[in-house]
Amino acid sequence: MAGSQKKITYSAIAERSGISIATISRVINNSSNVKDDTRKKVIEAMKSLGYDTSTLEANTSKTNDLIIFNIPSLDNPFYSLIIQGAKAAAQRNGYNMLINEDPIDDRSFDSFTALLKKTNAAGLITTNCIARSTLLRLNAILPLVQCCECIDGLNIPFVTIDDVSAARNAVEYLISLGKKRIAFINGPIEYKYSQDRLKGYLQALEQAKLEKDPDIIIQLQEIDYDMAVSAATQLLNSAQRPDAFFASSDVYAAAAIKASRRASLRVPEDIAIVGFDNIGLSSLCTPSITTVNQPKFQLGLLSCEMLIKRINAEQIPIQSMYMDTELIVRETTQKSLRS
Amino acid sequence: MAGSQKKITYSAIAERSGISIATISRVINNSSNVKDDTRKKVIEAMKSLGYDTSTLEANTSKTNDLIIFNIPSLDNPFYSLIIQGAKAAAQRNGYNMLINEDPIDDRSFDSFTALLKKTNAAGLITTNCIARSTLLRLNAILPLVQCCECIDGLNIPFVTIDDVSAARNAVEYLISLGKKRIAFINGPIEYKYSQDRLKGYLQALEQAKLEKDPDIIIQLQEIDYDMAVSAATQLLNSAQRPDAFFASSDVYAAAAIKASRRASLRVPEDIAIVGFDNIGLSSLCTPSITTVNQPKFQLGLLSCEMLIKRINAEQIPIQSMYMDTELIVRETTQKSLRS
Repeated sequence: MAGSQKKITYSAIAERSGISIATISRVINNSSNVKDDTRKKVIEAMKSLGYDTSTLEANTSKTNDLIIFNIPSLDNPFYSLIIQGAKAAAQRNGYNMLINEDPIDDRSFDSFTALLKKTNAAGLITTNCIARSTLLRLNAILPLVQCCECIDGLNIPFVTIDDVSAARNAVEYLISLGKKRIAFINGPIEYKYSQDRLKGYLQALEQAKLEKDPDIIIQLQEIDYDMAVSAATQLLNSAQRPDAFFASSDVYAAAAIKASRRASLRVPEDIAIVGFDNIGLSSLCTPSITTVNQPKFQLGLLSCEMLIKRINAEQIPIQSMYMDTELIVRETTQKSLRS
Repeated sequence: MAGSQKKITYSAIAERSGISIATISRVINNSSNVKDDTRKKVIEAMKSLGYDTSTLEANTSKTNDLIIFNIPSLDNPFYSLIIQGAKAAAQRNGYNMLINEDPIDDRSFDSFTALLKKTNAAGLITTNCIARSTLLRLNAILPLVQCCECIDGLNIPFVTIDDVSAARNAVEYLISLGKKRIAFINGPIEYKYSQDRLKGYLQALEQAKLEKDPDIIIQLQEIDYDMAVSAATQLLNSAQRPDAFFASSDVYAAAAIKASRRASLRVPEDIAIVGFDNIGLSSLCTPSITTVNQPKFQLGLLSCEMLIKRINAEQIPIQSMYMDTELIVRETTQKSLRS
């Protein structure tokens, strides 16, 4: 607020305009969630009380209704449905949404926040892997919600899934099929989801008293199909080959199918495969991929609704959410009548 | 330019500041592509010559360096690499880029242009299918470049491929393999690319004196895998089944693989398949898909470079570009030694 506005008392304006103090506060703080009519009434009341309303009037026409959705990469089709969900919530609430795929770290922080300022962004949803300190700095600048990838305990809300139990369930399913040597193809370990899926995988092996062999855990630095094919092929050609793959991404599961073909092994008879995410690819593949479904549309939708709540009210309790996942059984684990 | 600036002669400012006339022109036209130091020097020189620089000084801190990349849908992985190319060009030139997936038509025009204004966008690249009149209205508002999907003859630049000849080449290749009854799975026909690929397909059949049978042209309303599987399966179960599919998208080609499996036909022995775009899926599929590669990264990069030229100079000749495609032969047309 400009210095000239210091003498405002909200109660006087409320009395004059008949509008609640909460709404008056939003007008004075240039929140976007005030109807034009109401905004005008508040400004009129302020004028009649002798307050300087020039700043408020200048801002009337440029309410900030833009939400930025930040993702690590458009390459990963996983984000497409999440963004659609967020967009549905944005549109329903009169917000615009634009997508940004920049990393957010110390190096990019200034240019990224300059972009938020220039575009007059009202809030930010991110699925990126961001350092704790950077998240806190961002959250001090504008309302922020973490989607999927998140850090708990920062007083920054998130909407995500329970990766540990989802991974554990998937591996337990492979064990229930009689698999004894289950390899794991995992993604970039700086992501919390990779750390948690690894935990879930190890928990399932432990509970079933199966050997935890580090030699059959493939840890990749990016979601890269070719690298996954090479690594899986090597494993299948080793002396003690696995009888199943659990993959922390459907892209890796597709790579495991290719590797099995190259090693002349049948899927699912010789090698069972379970992926993660249920992206379009998983049903397009032949054989189609058994996978852990994430409620992608809902993850996006609820993240965006939570963000809009934060934009419209500075003080709301932080409520984070864990959403349910489900295992979708397809041809990489179960021989179907028709392929 | 404001009226008060009319008397400026660039040569006087160039002489005083030691800065080139081209750069001075960019400063005066508030182009974002000028270093802050240089901008200050030009303004100082103008001041010392008695020019009114108030408008320029006001604009110094809010250079508009935002490019909006508009796409029909994030669902189609085809756009991912195009956007990466555009982003590379944007970053190299000091621009930010945000992605928008709204349709642009009469109904959305006002809200879309309001968004461009609110975010202070400097220019727009679009891969959307937009009506002629709407493109012209947009082009009057801000610098615009059409990427891939385009309308020629509007004095609005575009960077695209020659879809007619790319499709003709692909079908000629299938004919060279001895295929006589080549079905075509085509996308939304309002898109110019669909119209052109259909033209190319028909030209190839005509030149080879093969029958043009409308019964084996599947025309779909969207890029939908399931719909394509159903339609292709139906065709393969008909009395006169095709011996090949040409698909105007790799997603359709993946659907043709699935349909062939369902009809217990071998790919490529019984059914050869050629896709289009060379998206990641085409090499991930088993068998991998023979397809027409589009230079996606380059399409994006050159579109963005063209846009930045337009942003920085109001009057540049409209130079559109057709980029080369190539056929990438994989397992859906050629039995490989290792699958």
